[in-house]
Amino acid sequence: MNIAIKDILAILPDGVRTCSVYVSGGVIASISSAPEGFAADKTIHGAGKMLMPGFVNAHTHAAMTIFRNCADDLLFNDWLFGKIFPLEDKLEGDDAYWGMLLAIMEMLRSGTTAFIDMYGFMYDYPRAIVDSGIRAALSRGATGDAASAEGTLAKALEEFDRWQGHDNLGFMLAPHAPYTCDEGFQREFAAEARRRGIPIHTHIAESLAEIETIRERHSCTPVELCDKTGLLYDKTVAAHCVHLTDGDIRILAERGVNVATNPVSNLKLANGVAPVMKMLEAGVKVALGTDGAASNNTLNMFRELSMLTLIHKGINHDAQAITAREGFEIATVNGARAMGYDNLGEIKPGNIADLVILDLDRPNMQPVNNPTAALAYSANGAEVETVIVGGRVLMENREFLTIDSERVYSEVSKICERIGTRQ
Amino acid sequence: MNIAIKDILAILPDGVRTCSVYVSGGVIASISSAPEGFAADKTIHGAGKMLMPGFVNAHTHAAMTIFRNCADDLLFNDWLFGKIFPLEDKLEGDDAYWGMLLAIMEMLRSGTTAFIDMYGFMYDYPRAIVDSGIRAALSRGATGDAASAEGTLAKALEEFDRWQGHDNLGFMLAPHAPYTCDEGFQREFAAEARRRGIPIHTHIAESLAEIETIRERHSCTPVELCDKTGLLYDKTVAAHCVHLTDGDIRILAERGVNVATNPVSNLKLANGVAPVMKMLEAGVKVALGTDGAASNNTLNMFRELSMLTLIHKGINHDAQAITAREGFEIATVNGARAMGYDNLGEIKPGNIADLVILDLDRPNMQPVNNPTAALAYSANGAEVETVIVGGRVLMENREFLTIDSERVYSEVSKICERIGTRQ
Repeated sequence: MNIAIKDILAILPDGVRTCSVYVSGGVIASISSAPEGFAADKTIHGAGKMLMPGFVNAHTHAAMTIFRNCADDLLFNDWLFGKIFPLEDKLEGDDAYWGMLLAIMEMLRSGTTAFIDMYGFMYDYPRAIVDSGIRAALSRGATGDAASAEGTLAKALEEFDRWQGHDNLGFMLAPHAPYTCDEGFQREFAAEARRRGIPIHTHIAESLAEIETIRERHSCTPVELCDKTGLLYDKTVAAHCVHLTDGDIRILAERGVNVATNPVSNLKLANGVAPVMKMLEAGVKVALGTDGAASNNTLNMFRELSMLTLIHKGINHDAQAITAREGFEIATVNGARAMGYDNLGEIKPGNIADLVILDLDRPNMQPVNNPTAALAYSANGAEVETVIVGGRVLMENREFLTIDSERVYSEVSKICERIGTRQ
Repeated sequence: MNIAIKDILAILPDGVRTCSVYVSGGVIASISSAPEGFAADKTIHGAGKMLMPGFVNAHTHAAMTIFRNCADDLLFNDWLFGKIFPLEDKLEGDDAYWGMLLAIMEMLRSGTTAFIDMYGFMYDYPRAIVDSGIRAALSRGATGDAASAEGTLAKALEEFDRWQGHDNLGFMLAPHAPYTCDEGFQREFAAEARRRGIPIHTHIAESLAEIETIRERHSCTPVELCDKTGLLYDKTVAAHCVHLTDGDIRILAERGVNVATNPVSNLKLANGVAPVMKMLEAGVKVALGTDGAASNNTLNMFRELSMLTLIHKGINHDAQAITAREGFEIATVNGARAMGYDNLGEIKPGNIADLVILDLDRPNMQPVNNPTAALAYSANGAEVETVIVGGRVLMENREFLTIDSERVYSEVSKICERIGTRQ
């Protein structure tokens, strides 16, 4: 499908300007003038609108939308062991599929075109990506010890084979966290990932309790442990990374790890504020994620971006910490790189056409003094009007073209009734 | 006008439940069953919707929407003296009127029905409140010394008389801040306010630079200075209050001051995080405000509420700090009390009918597990569909009934072109 987006205010890698963008064969064919012989199947007129690359949500647990707002204002252990785990035990059949579709709807509505996910129930789960057309790298969160590693690994790898052949769907191996996977388990996953070049997705140094547990068990930090077991390499996505030593930060930088920072979730679960400024100064690759809807409680990357660009200013007493532009890159192209793409997350010729069109004709987006600052500080996500993934229109004027939203609401509601999430 | 809102999920003072709410003569006439002889002029059906009291934005500078996104990622002094003050010097005629109307549109769109404002250019400014029908307490930000106090005060008081007679419009006296008003100036304003029972609106202890300045000039804290000059009484609204000693907090509690906390602005300008938990524990009355769009850069109270309920959890390492319910009350009824109302900010019979209807049929609001948590943690403000102030419908299905939005966008855009805010 050939799409012409004409005369639109666009967030380009080298700045913001009004231009036309031509999409063909799923990629951005050219900017400004149409490619030779280009015949548009669809033309979008850009007056009063803005074009940006889609956000990449670098760490989430999408199907946890089912648990949205059912476990709030709780201490971390009460939240996880008292509420979330018992509820997850009640999930069955294609529950996670419906929760995942609800998450995809929410992400598309708020400008996210790709995400990195960790969850279970993988049998049906990837079907939501194939059905909806959004881009994702999925992984089964795996926990266990050396004895169980081989079986768990085989199960994860089998899924990869079953879901081959979709451009918008990738997989990672996900040893859940250093406190839920023992050393042998980590080693087994790390070795297999490196052997096959599979990316790793894990949680590291989220809570102070984790720091203490790992110190007691292994006499080192979580980062040091994961480094020792081989989990940290340039295809690793490490979520959270809140409690780090300077040595940890050096290791993350040297290994080329992608850190997915989750500022809202870290505040909500009272884990604190990640040392993002220090990581950036040390050369750590930083991307941005919402975490799951049970600890956020939205998958809206606009709110996450505003939190990212605000909190480090206040905490570091530096009003120039993480500018709107820097934050926007962390939320887009850095996430794309964490997913393993070098041709995604920026609007430039040859890149994959994952694009978002926003409506500027709204009070909070007026006047248009600085479009990039508006994205970080003024937008709430509801400005998103049309979303294109891989050159395919998935949402047009806020209507989902690949998802039956009423069905999704109804199925999720039934699941909630059955498992008892209502407060 | 009689309005019946039927069978709607409502946030009531004692919890959340589905009920009907009847509005008559500008007030909430009854809940559940219609008053005797009630004939509805308008009936709103509540299926798939939620009803809440409107937010009260307890501290803003509304007309600064003109400067939205034109001065970001700057150090505080560069922001204020290098950008904002020179731009404000270029404002003239009815510029502030149009900026104010844009702010009112933004606030109505995101569920705010009342606000406490400080700005200048008051000649035209109150007309925006009268024309739009929103509720506001306005004040002219006044700076100066003992010699200029009498003249400045007279000018402010003259405005009160000129704009008498509007239920939705009130005034405060606003000595700007302890670092811009000398001791004599503060005393003059304080005495007049107390004599006539006029509320006071001021900024206190926003930045560390202010703390140092007051320490050098007066050998005390800003709160101590304002207390000495008489500015602190139970009708005072003190914005920011970021840098406080335990003694300051005691004074604020004892004097019955309303603190308007501004978490987003305080982060954005790198001033830090106010000790809200300590204030609440000490019995200080706390309300919530966005500050102006030049330091936020939105007037969306949903984002402010989410920041309020998130940041104190993370900073205090307490996941139970400021629950969704507590935050919601701070953002509604506490703001109403700061404005001087004892019959506003809660949905109960006899209260003024400032009401907001939200659409739940959106991915981020599904499933409906806990409506109050959804307001604090999941909503982005775009759910707001219909807004009623004093029993009058000001926005219906996102259409403004009292404001010509195209005209406002166009006038604000012209102002921005003229004064040079484009980046």
